Amino acid sequence: MYTDHKPQEIDQILAKSKAAFYQYKNSSLKERANFMCAIAVEIEALGEELIKVAAEETHLSEKRLYAELKRTIFQLNSYADAAEQGNWLEARIDVGNANVTPPKPDLRKMLVPLGSVVIFGASNFPFAYSTAGGDTACAFAAGCPVIVKAHPAHVKTSTLVANAILAAADKCNMPEGIFAHVYGADFKVGEYLVKHDMVKAVGFTGSYGGGRALFDLANQRKTPIPVFAEMGSVNPVFLLPNKLEEDYQWIAEQLSRSITQDMGQFCTNPGLVIAIRSDALDLYINQLIAGVKKVEPVEMLHKGIAKSFRENREKALTQDSVDVIYQSDMDENDQKGIITIAAVSGKSFLSNHQLHEEVFGPYSLLVVCEDEQELLTVAENLEGQLTTTLMATSTDIENHSHLLNVLREKCGRLVLNGVPTGVEVALAMHHGGPFPSSTDSRFTAVGADGIKRFARPVSFQNWDNEFLPEELKNQNPLRIWRTVNNELTKNVILEI
Amino acid sequence: MYTDHKPQEIDQILAKSKAAFYQYKNSSLKERANFMCAIAVEIEALGEELIKVAAEETHLSEKRLYAELKRTIFQLNSYADAAEQGNWLEARIDVGNANVTPPKPDLRKMLVPLGSVVIFGASNFPFAYSTAGGDTACAFAAGCPVIVKAHPAHVKTSTLVANAILAAADKCNMPEGIFAHVYGADFKVGEYLVKHDMVKAVGFTGSYGGGRALFDLANQRKTPIPVFAEMGSVNPVFLLPNKLEEDYQWIAEQLSRSITQDMGQFCTNPGLVIAIRSDALDLYINQLIAGVKKVEPVEMLHKGIAKSFRENREKALTQDSVDVIYQSDMDENDQKGIITIAAVSGKSFLSNHQLHEEVFGPYSLLVVCEDEQELLTVAENLEGQLTTTLMATSTDIENHSHLLNVLREKCGRLVLNGVPTGVEVALAMHHGGPFPSSTDSRFTAVGADGIKRFARPVSFQNWDNEFLPEELKNQNPLRIWRTVNNELTKNVILEI
Repeated sequence: MYTDHKPQEIDQILAKSKAAFYQYKNSSLKERANFMCAIAVEIEALGEELIKVAAEETHLSEKRLYAELKRTIFQLNSYADAAEQGNWLEARIDVGNANVTPPKPDLRKMLVPLGSVVIFGASNFPFAYSTAGGDTACAFAAGCPVIVKAHPAHVKTSTLVANAILAAADKCNMPEGIFAHVYGADFKVGEYLVKHDMVKAVGFTGSYGGGRALFDLANQRKTPIPVFAEMGSVNPVFLLPNKLEEDYQWIAEQLSRSITQDMGQFCTNPGLVIAIRSDALDLYINQLIAGVKKVEPVEMLHKGIAKSFRENREKALTQDSVDVIYQSDMDENDQKGIITIAAVSGKSFLSNHQLHEEVFGPYSLLVVCEDEQELLTVAENLEGQLTTTLMATSTDIENHSHLLNVLREKCGRLVLNGVPTGVEVALAMHHGGPFPSSTDSRFTAVGADGIKRFARPVSFQNWDNEFLPEELKNQNPLRIWRTVNNELTKNVILEI
Repeated sequence: MYTDHKPQEIDQILAKSKAAFYQYKNSSLKERANFMCAIAVEIEALGEELIKVAAEETHLSEKRLYAELKRTIFQLNSYADAAEQGNWLEARIDVGNANVTPPKPDLRKMLVPLGSVVIFGASNFPFAYSTAGGDTACAFAAGCPVIVKAHPAHVKTSTLVANAILAAADKCNMPEGIFAHVYGADFKVGEYLVKHDMVKAVGFTGSYGGGRALFDLANQRKTPIPVFAEMGSVNPVFLLPNKLEEDYQWIAEQLSRSITQDMGQFCTNPGLVIAIRSDALDLYINQLIAGVKKVEPVEMLHKGIAKSFRENREKALTQDSVDVIYQSDMDENDQKGIITIAAVSGKSFLSNHQLHEEVFGPYSLLVVCEDEQELLTVAENLEGQLTTTLMATSTDIENHSHLLNVLREKCGRLVLNGVPTGVEVALAMHHGGPFPSSTDSRFTAVGADGIKRFARPVSFQNWDNEFLPEELKNQNPLRIWRTVNNELTKNVILEI
């Protein structure tokens, strides 16, 4: 039913996508926004059927799926607003002057779309980071046609959403080829897409292995293309002494929920907790165990994830000096998550890189340090992360300025007294981070700044006003913010 | 005297650079700007001596070198202004609300520096794109320490400028290690730098071969780092029929100067001119020849460039069906440029990719098309370019909307009725373009937006106001533009 697309079929799809690009790139911001909002309407109209199919394919609860669907619709609508507001265009104008020697050229710059974008969605977010998820919304906002490689773990869900996008495209008179849905359970399909001459950028959400493979393929092309891969991380949480002493109970409540929510299947799951040995830490551990004990394990997203989780968990637990301090019941024959809290000394953690690796699922490793110095050394040896969290009082913060200085280099988001899970869709969100959490720390997967992954600047030099794009005309007909002669303004430019 | 640095020496330099980063990244925008302006002062103070040494090393005229020095000083000062103005920080604030369910987190985002940046300067701009050139200025503005690999073709010039930077660093009490100058005539030194764990980004200006090699090394690292390489292009100039007919003389004047200026040693040299066969084209050719004939060839930048130019020129001229329509005198024993205008049919150009390659120097190929369709096909088959130029009247523009639609995809800057040489230093300038003209079409080498090559966003979630960076505090003490709850403003945020 969902047979893999063949190379010749993909060639045809991409030829249509390229043709669509030459039309869609000239669409107005308003037209793009309308199209994105129409997609939201079509998806919302799928209603219960979509939730039912997704629940079957992913084992996620209906409650969670309803919330995720709401988020997906919010993303489409809010990125549509941002697209239309036009700040992302980074319109810059330096008005020329022919009366100086040498004459000063007239320069006007704005972002334009890159071209056809291939998107690989995440298994853990069948709506919000999949077919009509954040990457697709950002690409459409930028003016790029999209080709989604259906996720094999939720191919029915993906097909329903793809059809909703196509229906919206039809209603909005979008060019044929603005969107395509490609099936490929085999990695070769993805490889063929990423290596294809007509593809100009790639968005990916998933594992390090998958993301790195696509990144390498794209860079080895004769004409390399940008790949933004968000590849997850262990999201270290530092429990600083004063806060731990004052608030161990609250911390344990927060973390027990964050570690186990949806079987820990979040790229922002707190997979690593770091603290200094103390009585308060022991009290925290007891509370944490009490907290996670209350959670009933459920089936993981799909067989592959369940298998990987169990293998990676086993690998982590069998490392030297790792103690299991809590694990839920397990059954070899089911695909449920096994809630696991392990512990290791700072010394062992520092000497064994395997313990730095993500175990995707309801797993968290507590690193118990001897002292402040060891805690700092652990921080210094962390890889790039999506998030880093500090549980800290004002006193802790004042006492740990160097630690903070180090941690800012390790992550894309620094959380204070909260949990890393729960990625707010907002302009000020950064969802990305230093490698290996993402392939390019300069871009985000969440928030309207994500549009900029799929756009590049072009300068127009000495063009007559009538032939400039609307965004750059003297009259500023779209009333967007522009930087004119180094000052941000919405003003028109007076002709001399 | 300028012996290559050894690996152990580089390790020490980079350790100091990393230590400097942990201080410098926390410097205020004002401190960075002061440092950059101090560099400008020190370089200006070198005066005649610097010009003399550079003229000896590069064979560029003193007039040109004075102009380039002025540009370099302007860059340092204007990027310092931009750094301090703070728009490049992309400060975004979404104010939290604890009174909604679930609570809305407080999110505040800004760009922070990547870390130590290695810069490889260009041979053709010993000041403006070298030791204290645009890349160095952008990295300092972003908050990054810099390591410059001295260009072997102007190592004395580079050393003088490096010492000026160090003197400025000293006067401004910058941390030791903020800047280092590394010698390496051997490619291995550059390779060692780019592969080094402590290096976080690379800036390069030069040949495709050099840029691609560094790009590949950086991407093959365990932890890849961004490389922005500006690798030049052939900068196609389209002579549209109406304009050619009306203004062939003016076009010939403009292009004869642009092709031969400083022996064509510009990455924006118009190496390709495309037109449709016509009587006006013949008249243009005659005028062009008359124009370039007046130019006296001089020595090229250095032996290596002279040798490459002659080899690449020979390779181009010996391709099937290529006619030489003008060449200046040549002497096997000197290192002068040979001003060369060649011509080829559209058909031959389309069938021979060799003719699409840059011949760096005073060389330009005229592609004579049979008709509009062939001209369009040539446009469609161009590689990525820094610039594309149209010589066109309003009528031409109206008649060639599809050509324009195609050309925008091929370049970073679209010039109308001008020449591609002369890259204005301005915010609205884009100096970059689709691969192979640069390694990432989303970033620029010229203008203050170039700062963003060396910076990445970090979000602060739920931080107390007192612990936030100045840029993100409620009071907006730096009075910078920020996007607060999706609106651009300089306003303070009222505490509730």
